[in-house]
Parts: sequence; structure tokens; C-alpha cells
Amino acid sequence: MDTLTSFDHVIINANLATFSAQYGFDIYADNRDSAAAKSTPYGQLENAAIGIKDGKITWIGAHTQITAYLIHYQSQQITDADGHWITPGLIDCHTHIIYGGNRSNEFEARLHGANYQDIAAQGGGIVSTVRSTREANFEALFAQSEKRLLALIKEGVTSIEIKSGYGLDLETERKMLKVARQLGEKHDIHVSTTYLAAHALPPEYKDNADDYIEQVCQWLPILHGEGLVDAVDGFCENIAFTAEQMKRVFEVARSLDLPVKLHSEQLSNIGASALVAEYKGLSSDHLEHLVEDDIKKMATSNTVAVLLPGAFYTLRDTKLPPIKELRHHQVPMAVSTDCNPGTSPLTSLLLAMNMGCTLFYMTPEEVLAGATVHAAQALGLSHKGRVEIGCDADLVLWDITRPADLAYQMGLNPIEGIMINGKWR
Amino acid sequence: MDTLTSFDHVIINANLATFSAQYGFDIYADNRDSAAAKSTPYGQLENAAIGIKDGKITWIGAHTQITAYLIHYQSQQITDADGHWITPGLIDCHTHIIYGGNRSNEFEARLHGANYQDIAAQGGGIVSTVRSTREANFEALFAQSEKRLLALIKEGVTSIEIKSGYGLDLETERKMLKVARQLGEKHDIHVSTTYLAAHALPPEYKDNADDYIEQVCQWLPILHGEGLVDAVDGFCENIAFTAEQMKRVFEVARSLDLPVKLHSEQLSNIGASALVAEYKGLSSDHLEHLVEDDIKKMATSNTVAVLLPGAFYTLRDTKLPPIKELRHHQVPMAVSTDCNPGTSPLTSLLLAMNMGCTLFYMTPEEVLAGATVHAAQALGLSHKGRVEIGCDADLVLWDITRPADLAYQMGLNPIEGIMINGKWR
Repeated sequence: MDTLTSFDHVIINANLATFSAQYGFDIYADNRDSAAAKSTPYGQLENAAIGIKDGKITWIGAHTQITAYLIHYQSQQITDADGHWITPGLIDCHTHIIYGGNRSNEFEARLHGANYQDIAAQGGGIVSTVRSTREANFEALFAQSEKRLLALIKEGVTSIEIKSGYGLDLETERKMLKVARQLGEKHDIHVSTTYLAAHALPPEYKDNADDYIEQVCQWLPILHGEGLVDAVDGFCENIAFTAEQMKRVFEVARSLDLPVKLHSEQLSNIGASALVAEYKGLSSDHLEHLVEDDIKKMATSNTVAVLLPGAFYTLRDTKLPPIKELRHHQVPMAVSTDCNPGTSPLTSLLLAMNMGCTLFYMTPEEVLAGATVHAAQALGLSHKGRVEIGCDADLVLWDITRPADLAYQMGLNPIEGIMINGKWR
Repeated sequence: MDTLTSFDHVIINANLATFSAQYGFDIYADNRDSAAAKSTPYGQLENAAIGIKDGKITWIGAHTQITAYLIHYQSQQITDADGHWITPGLIDCHTHIIYGGNRSNEFEARLHGANYQDIAAQGGGIVSTVRSTREANFEALFAQSEKRLLALIKEGVTSIEIKSGYGLDLETERKMLKVARQLGEKHDIHVSTTYLAAHALPPEYKDNADDYIEQVCQWLPILHGEGLVDAVDGFCENIAFTAEQMKRVFEVARSLDLPVKLHSEQLSNIGASALVAEYKGLSSDHLEHLVEDDIKKMATSNTVAVLLPGAFYTLRDTKLPPIKELRHHQVPMAVSTDCNPGTSPLTSLLLAMNMGCTLFYMTPEEVLAGATVHAAQALGLSHKGRVEIGCDADLVLWDITRPADLAYQMGLNPIEGIMINGKWR
């Protein structure tokens, strides 16, 4: 009883999608050899209650266990979920939400018949975003990016990864990472920053990628020393940087004890996921051209497969990532918006989940796990992404009849409340 | 000056996407033989002002023309658009937003491997929606449907078409149409109701479609007599009703002077669009299997082609509607959500517009015209869908840099204000 009356807040009369193994969540149960393998979809727990203290979940039990003690609470300390569903706060683990300008003019030009060459010749493509991002002052960049963050938060995102990578010079990469940090502080949500200077070759280093990579390696300790970097990423692709070049950046990351990840196998396979696995990276992202050998390596290194159906959709890609094989080898799959101005102008994680189902044939449980527990793993956040005792009290209350509704509906935001660190926003 | 000081409201400092021929909107200009054919994309008018009186647009001019007269107005009568964009209120011209239950369980079951036969055997498919809609009382059906309407309104929809068709009996078709009317009254937006009893064969008429159509024909005058019907629709398809059967319904519609439309050529071509054209119908909808002969008939009968990319996406269809041929024959194209629980659980007209571009290769101007001027035509609303003197003052103010942003972004709702009948909501 002492325990049950020492909460800052209690949530009663809720159905929980916990995504916690403690409540039977086991997304690979169907794969396991043992005939005894059983799972509870979504780790769900019906008619439950949650006790919260100091921003953490400190108790989970049956609704009936707590009702007798409610007399000890003031009404503002109690949330009656009215039989609705609670999930962990959503986590968007791969975004480029900070950028200047936008590329709707190119989107329109292409639909009027311009090809990528025409657009590049007119200074379009990623170069135009780099130019706009360099030109934007801190306040303008903050204001523009904040709109995108708020759209994500409005749908239940309580933690987000934000990449640099439209500066491609020290000053602008720093500006982007500072905007990312300040967005997190202002809106009191968790922001994981990722250093992505190896995103594209800046015009001033044309035909000189190795020299640019040398700069990328030199800037990293500087920005990390300023407290701006939580992880290191790169675009490892024929049109960007080789695995050898990324390895040089990863060596610097390792020396700083920073985790790594890559944009891998989106257009081809040049060994990106294998490299990430070699460095026991947090995640390997995109993966349309991933092969089974690399999947095995990812399974061994416990690297998350981050799937980005918004880019697949926008690029009208037809090559599907190897979902069945990832399932078979029990590689955790995350789903993210990849919000960026060129290939995924998407600020809805719920829509990314729907696309995961519709375009990639993932199940609703997989895409929801991909925006909670597996997204948390992709960011190395061990106390987020699950409704579990000891985890951060980042929760979302939804007006839905079953968890699958979140992936099924498009454009209908059924959110009723967002709790971050134990406080309703 | 008298004119300029006799408005109820003025909007200043706005960029307008008028979609009005008076301001150069001519979406087929590229097609015309005349080398002199020129158009102003979106019928756009920059640095403009709008005068509104009695719910109508009564004046449009340059911002500078009106500034001297602003002294005559109280501040609450003036909206400074601050250089942002105004479009006509959006019009969603093909929806089934009124239904009981939802089908996320089937969505999930299919992704776990169930096929349509399995689901039908378990009472799933449209039959399950009919059952839930019949079972729901008026208040429950209203409350559930209202959430979907509000999601659409939040993104700028000021007029909407709502179909019956999940009752398939007189009582429930009436209940649906009454919910539609009351939704419009409560939220003060224009609702066009469509009688769609010929949507599917109800279980009680199994193998007896002709007798059911007889009922459909008998119910129509009754419901029309109650003021519940603005137009008549049917699902003319191999798996639903034949053109002959629809013709019997259309004859009744003609006797009541009601306009007609059809769900046409979604899965096959059995003459639906040709029939609609024969009856000079308002619109023919879906159209993936439409052929050029029928396009010519639609052009002659001035029938709008309503394109529904949300259903195409959800069904993972690969057969594209003949956009180029529709363009060539200058058939007006509308875009709509087709919001329904089975094949398009979509309550975002902005996302439908993005899908029109991404999946159907329509231009941003085409999809925006498709959600304004052409959608108005599809509903026979001659005073809506354009920013033009004499039209209803249904307007949306957007925080965007160019009209194409509305089709380019996914999940970012840049709305700043909705005006309906001259009043900001």
C-alpha cells in the first residue's frame, strides 16, 4: 500500500501496448523453433493501471489493484483513460528535419517533365538545400524546423533523432546541431543528434572526396567536444561515399566512443551494412538492396534495420527491402519518417507506419514496435520505447479500439494525450 | 470608394491561387492548338486583397488599391495575410465518411497472411461495415463520423460530398443521409449528400440483384421526398451492379431531376463511364480501366473524372488511370480521399493530393484544381471552388511559400485559417 500511494501520478482504466518482454511481447515468436514459443501481441495488458514517480514508470498492475487507493490522490493526479489505449511515446529514429528552403519547386518541375539532370543543371537537388541551409540564420532555421518538429510531436513523437548534413562545412554543421539541441530543450523532448557531414560532397570539394572526408574526420572531435554529437552517420552509396571512406570516419567515432550508423543499400550494395555491423553500429538504414549475408552480420552485431518507406514511396521505388529475411534472422526493424526535403517530405510517423504495412507488408505490430521499442534500440535509449517499470514515463493515450488502428488510418490523428517524463503536455 | 468601404471583411496582403479563368487559370493551355494560348498557373494573383460582403466575394484587387480605405474598417474586419497564400476552400467530392466499426482487424489479418476469402468467410469485408452501420444508433454513428469530418475540416475542407451505401436497407440508408445532413448543419459546412444504395448487394438479396435494384429504385423517391438526396451514385462493376441495373436507377433519378455519377472502371470496364456520360452525369469516379472512347464521351457530356489515389495505394493497384488521355481530351480531373473503411481509410485531402502527384503523375496545379474548381464542378456547385467575384467566401489561408507546397508535403498541415461563408472559423 505504501508503494501504491507514493506516486506523483496514476493512470487508471487503460489498455496498454507495452512492447515489453515482461508482458509477453516477442515479435519473433512465430519464428522460433520451440513449439512452446508464445507471445502476447503488442505485449498488451488490458484493464491496467500505471503508477508514475519522478518521471519514471514505477508500478504497473491491474486496474482493480489500484482503485481502493485512489482516495489518497487528488483528482489532478489521476488520469482515467476510459478504456482507451496507451503506447510508449513514439520515437522517430531517422530524420533530417533541420533544413533551409524546401524543394517543392523541383517536385513540381519533375511533374512537368524535368528530369534530375535538368534540375541539377539549375542548381537543384541536395545542393540547393545546402545553399539554403548555409544562408539561413540560426533563428530562421530554428523557426522553419520547429514547424516540422511540432507536426511530429502532435502525433505522439516524444523522442527524435535529428541529423546534420546540409551544412557540409564546420560552421553550418554546428548551426544545425545547435538548432537540434535547442529544439529539444524548448519543447522538452528527447533529441538524439547525429553528425552527418558525410552526407554529400559539397561543391567546393568536387572530385575530391578523400580530402572532404579528411575534413569530416577533423570536424567531428571539435563538434563532439562542444557536446553536439550523440552518434555518427554517413551516406554510403555509389553516388556518395565508399565504405573505405566511411571507415575513416568510423575510426574517429570509435576513438571518441561514439556509436555509428549508415544510410545503407538504398540504391546499391557497396558494403555499408557489413561495415556498420563490423563497428557494432546502432542501425543500418534504408536497406532496399540488403543481402542475406549482411543480414546475418547485422543479427550478430545487434544492429537495428531502420526502414524508410516514405523515401521508397516518394522515389516510386519498386525494390522492396528484405523484410522476410530480416524477420527470419530476428533483426529488429524500426520505421521512421526520414523527413527530408528531397526524397521524403514527410512529417507523420503514423503515415510512415501505414506505408510500412502497405508498401513493405510489415504487420501493424511490427511497425508499431518499429516506432517504439526498436526505434529506441536504434538510438541506444535503453529506458524508452516500452511501458515497463523503470522506463521513462513517455506515454501516448489514443482514442482507438485496437493498436492496429494506428497503422490502418491515414490522416486521422487519434491522439488524446502525450506524457513526457511523467508530465502531460 | 463606396464599394471599397462596404465590405463586412477585407483580406489584405495576400497571394491568391484563384483557379479562376478570369485571372488566367487554364489548365489545358499546354494542350491547345493555338500558339497564343497562355495561362497563369493556379490563376495566381500576388499582392492582392479581397473584399467580402454577405458571405460572398464581392471585390478582388491589388493590395495597394485598398490600403487607403482601411481607415474605414475596424481591426477585426481586416485580415492581414502577411504575404501568405489563399486558396478556395478545399472540396472533398467523393467520400464514405459515415460508417460503423472499422476494418483495422482485417487490415491486420491480411498482413498476417489471411486472404480475402478467409476474411469473407469470417463475415468480413463490406458486409461487416454494413452490419456495424445498421447496428449503430444515430448518435454513435454521428460521433464516429464526426471525427473523420473534423480531420478533413482541419486541413481546409469547406465542402464535402458524403455517400450513403452501408445501410442497403431503407432505414439505415436514411439514417446515414440524416447523419450527413446534421454533420453539415452542426459544423456549418456544405454537405452534398449522395444516395448510394446500389453500393453492394445486401446478404438478404443474395443472388437476387435485380430484385434489390427494384428496392433501390423504390427507396429513392422516398428519401428524396424527405430532402435527403442531392445526387445518385452506384458501384458499376463485375463484383457489384451491371450498367443495365444502374440504368434503371438512373431513370428514377432523371424523373426526380437528380444528377448522377458512378464508381466506374476501378477493376474492369463494363460501360460505367459511357452510361454516366449518356445521362450527362456530374462525375465518373476511380477510372483505372477507363478507355479513350469513354473519355471522349465524358468530354462531350462535361463529366468530371474523379481520381481516387488513396484506394489505388491501399489496394496496391498498378494499373494507372489514363491521366494523359484525360488531359488531352480536356476532361476536368478532381482528386478526392474516397474515405472509406475498406479500401481507403484516408481522412487527408492534402495527402490524396500528394498521392495524385506521386502515384498518378498529376501536377500540383492539377491536384489543387482537383480539390477546388474541378471538385466543385463534380458536385454541381457553381459558386464554389474559385476565388472570384460572386463566389462564396469559402477560403483557406496557408503558411506556404508556393501553392505546390500543399501537394509536396506529407503530414504537415500548414493551415492558418479557414473562412466559410465569409466568417473565419
